[in-house]
Amino acid sequence: MRSFLLAAALGALAVPAFAAAPATAPADPLRAGAEAARDRALSDPTAYDFVESLTTDVGPRLAGTEASVRARDWGIARLTALGFKNVHAEAFPVTAWQRGAESAEVVSPHPQKLAILGLGGSVPTPPGGIEAEAVVFATYNDLLAAPVGSLAGKIAIVTQPMVRTAEGSGYGAANPIRRSGASEAARRGAVAYLHRSLATGESRLPHTGALNYQKDAPRIPAAALSVIDAELLDHMAARGQPIRIRLKLESSETPSQSWTVTGEIPGAVHPEQVIIVGGHLDSWDPGTGAIDDGTGMAITVAAARLAGGGHAPRRTLRVALFGAEEMDFSDDAFTAAHKAELPNIVAVGESDEGADRLWALALPKDAAKLPEMKTLATVLAPLSIYVSPEPSRFGGSDIGGLTMAGAPTIAFHQDASRYFDWHHSADDTLDKVDRAQLSQNVAGWASLLYILANSDVDLHPAAAPAPAKP
Amino acid sequence: MRSFLLAAALGALAVPAFAAAPATAPADPLRAGAEAARDRALSDPTAYDFVESLTTDVGPRLAGTEASVRARDWGIARLTALGFKNVHAEAFPVTAWQRGAESAEVVSPHPQKLAILGLGGSVPTPPGGIEAEAVVFATYNDLLAAPVGSLAGKIAIVTQPMVRTAEGSGYGAANPIRRSGASEAARRGAVAYLHRSLATGESRLPHTGALNYQKDAPRIPAAALSVIDAELLDHMAARGQPIRIRLKLESSETPSQSWTVTGEIPGAVHPEQVIIVGGHLDSWDPGTGAIDDGTGMAITVAAARLAGGGHAPRRTLRVALFGAEEMDFSDDAFTAAHKAELPNIVAVGESDEGADRLWALALPKDAAKLPEMKTLATVLAPLSIYVSPEPSRFGGSDIGGLTMAGAPTIAFHQDASRYFDWHHSADDTLDKVDRAQLSQNVAGWASLLYILANSDVDLHPAAAPAPAKP
Repeated sequence: MRSFLLAAALGALAVPAFAAAPATAPADPLRAGAEAARDRALSDPTAYDFVESLTTDVGPRLAGTEASVRARDWGIARLTALGFKNVHAEAFPVTAWQRGAESAEVVSPHPQKLAILGLGGSVPTPPGGIEAEAVVFATYNDLLAAPVGSLAGKIAIVTQPMVRTAEGSGYGAANPIRRSGASEAARRGAVAYLHRSLATGESRLPHTGALNYQKDAPRIPAAALSVIDAELLDHMAARGQPIRIRLKLESSETPSQSWTVTGEIPGAVHPEQVIIVGGHLDSWDPGTGAIDDGTGMAITVAAARLAGGGHAPRRTLRVALFGAEEMDFSDDAFTAAHKAELPNIVAVGESDEGADRLWALALPKDAAKLPEMKTLATVLAPLSIYVSPEPSRFGGSDIGGLTMAGAPTIAFHQDASRYFDWHHSADDTLDKVDRAQLSQNVAGWASLLYILANSDVDLHPAAAPAPAKP
Repeated sequence: MRSFLLAAALGALAVPAFAAAPATAPADPLRAGAEAARDRALSDPTAYDFVESLTTDVGPRLAGTEASVRARDWGIARLTALGFKNVHAEAFPVTAWQRGAESAEVVSPHPQKLAILGLGGSVPTPPGGIEAEAVVFATYNDLLAAPVGSLAGKIAIVTQPMVRTAEGSGYGAANPIRRSGASEAARRGAVAYLHRSLATGESRLPHTGALNYQKDAPRIPAAALSVIDAELLDHMAARGQPIRIRLKLESSETPSQSWTVTGEIPGAVHPEQVIIVGGHLDSWDPGTGAIDDGTGMAITVAAARLAGGGHAPRRTLRVALFGAEEMDFSDDAFTAAHKAELPNIVAVGESDEGADRLWALALPKDAAKLPEMKTLATVLAPLSIYVSPEPSRFGGSDIGGLTMAGAPTIAFHQDASRYFDWHHSADDTLDKVDRAQLSQNVAGWASLLYILANSDVDLHPAAAPAPAKP
């Protein structure tokens, strides 16, 4: 069965008679080729092997650190070994933030250690740490409602939980708690800020992530509590007694650089027309960066290889391993470096929400009406993926600049139900990768990339057929 | 409904006509009282409140540490507040083992940090740590098969997984890996020992526990790797390259003492006849000791109160909060202190496997044939608990001495499917307590204790009816 499918796929364009289309339907080489790439994906080991090696041989790799240099070299070697051409690293400046020793504990009324992780970008505490009374807010809005000055000398704590949702929207809704909470607390006088990890599940492992200091507020140290430690503080706060907390955070920031590693399968007919897909190479330090975002790179790299391998595609398939997503540096750098290519960018996409199953594909406005995209919908349907009636808006943090600049953006929706159980924590590790779901991701992306790379479809909104008059 | 049941329970012995027996059956005050205690248990908050307070107001409490003094005081106050009589603490000597700073990392071929916890009783490494080549054994038997001297200067690592089972037998089967592995490795020349946590689930949090050094082997430092870190080492080992590991463990041992806290509901007819049940007050240091063994104490304390409260039971119900289960000290101390009571011990039992549902009750040999125990079987059946045809053998670590000395031992079997996901780790916390299952535990124990305390049943094997001739 497999060798038949492989032969069908390799021969699809050259010998349409071999295509795997149903005997009763007219031969459709584009559909047949996409189906063959899709079906090969389901037993292709490339993606899993990619993540296995990255997590074992590199491990955590925060942008600008020594580990990110090893990750760059690993990425170049991997793409080269997988047969990609023009493999190279594009350097750009970053500020490398690195964690030092960290600890937190309740001093009174009853001593207990607290599991925390400093937020990316947090300033350190003074060397002796900070000890202060805590003010526990059950919601972020309660913090925002606190008057200026009311937290003077206090440690502000927000224990609001993040909501588990199938499509990950709970993370976006909770994001200001981590991104802006420190500045909001500082503006009200707080000397440090803690918040319940933006995470689902019940684990003692905290989940880190970047914060953004606002210009008009003092920079105070900030850290994420594990979900369980936030709940413990809720229980303590319910007693109404003062809670004193001691917090120590060490961290450093140094000017450094990072790299986005790219490789191509050059197009045979329109090499200048390029489809750019990828994931991000940098990862948070506590885990090994398996699902954030080893799998995103693995899925798109494996899919591009299946879509473009064995024959030269019409257009160029380019994979990008973005070098600084977590600290928000790669998007602007990549956009600036590739803006001149904009007219030739057929599509951009990023996989950055783990490796659980795809359930929908969002395309640029009106593109779903194009015949090639209708073919794609047919190819995706057996994978339990539909083409969304809603247009794509956001394709990924590293391609936001290109999306804003007008590049047609493709966005698969993934099942994110479990993703935030592990995201940005020490539990972001290889064992969380479900191989069957990983393969379904590769199959979906391979189907899409095959059609984009082997047709002349134009996803720009203006190219879509005019809507039928009512 | 609830007030009716309560009235029935309170009046069961005095006014049998009020008992909740079916209208068509003869009134059975023992059954009716047990059923009333059982039913009240399902909405009784005592057990949950017990664990909530212990985990919030005390937290981790390893025997002999400063925290164990706070735990003792908390236990005395709690039992007193719950109405128990003769509440006191029985002191006994322990060696207090305390964890210091700990770290482990792969140095080469690719640097990665490893999540570990030193084993209870482990000697520290030299202050600068130990750096050595690792030898990874996929099974414990592979380590045992290694010749003496073959591990000279090496760090021995066993990555064998523990098996998840519904009744917890996978833990017993894997126990020698933690208990004896360090001595077995040392006997073969190893300078340190690491093993995959005796744990189910996939978490980066390691699970600690006590080791036992053997007299004829050097004492080498030993620690548990998280399940995930053991898997990472499996992946590294599969490459066939030498792996170097650096390990630092700080720990101290000091002579100290601990306390078993007891309280009673004195019997009105036979105060000298005593039923002893409990759980253990000490807990491992990384978590807050919710399921090991906050719930065990909570269940038995709440059950004793329901079984003996509101009226004076015939016999004395005694609860024991054992003071040093994890380091194996409380059993001998308690046995020695209470051996003189042996003829008067009606039954002993311990709850120490979390708070998930009870599914069977094992009684002393032939006791299931006694009429009171047949009544008990009837009362337990609606809770989905059967009386096992197999006699009880092991009732709990803290009552092993009394069992060996001949005290009739009762042993509930619990669903341990999830227990070893969290046991002995930082994840042993309040959120893991399923309130419905906790209540089912209290109901099962309350039914049992009601019948033991309000009848003259004798569980000694000799007291059972002679088996019918075939």
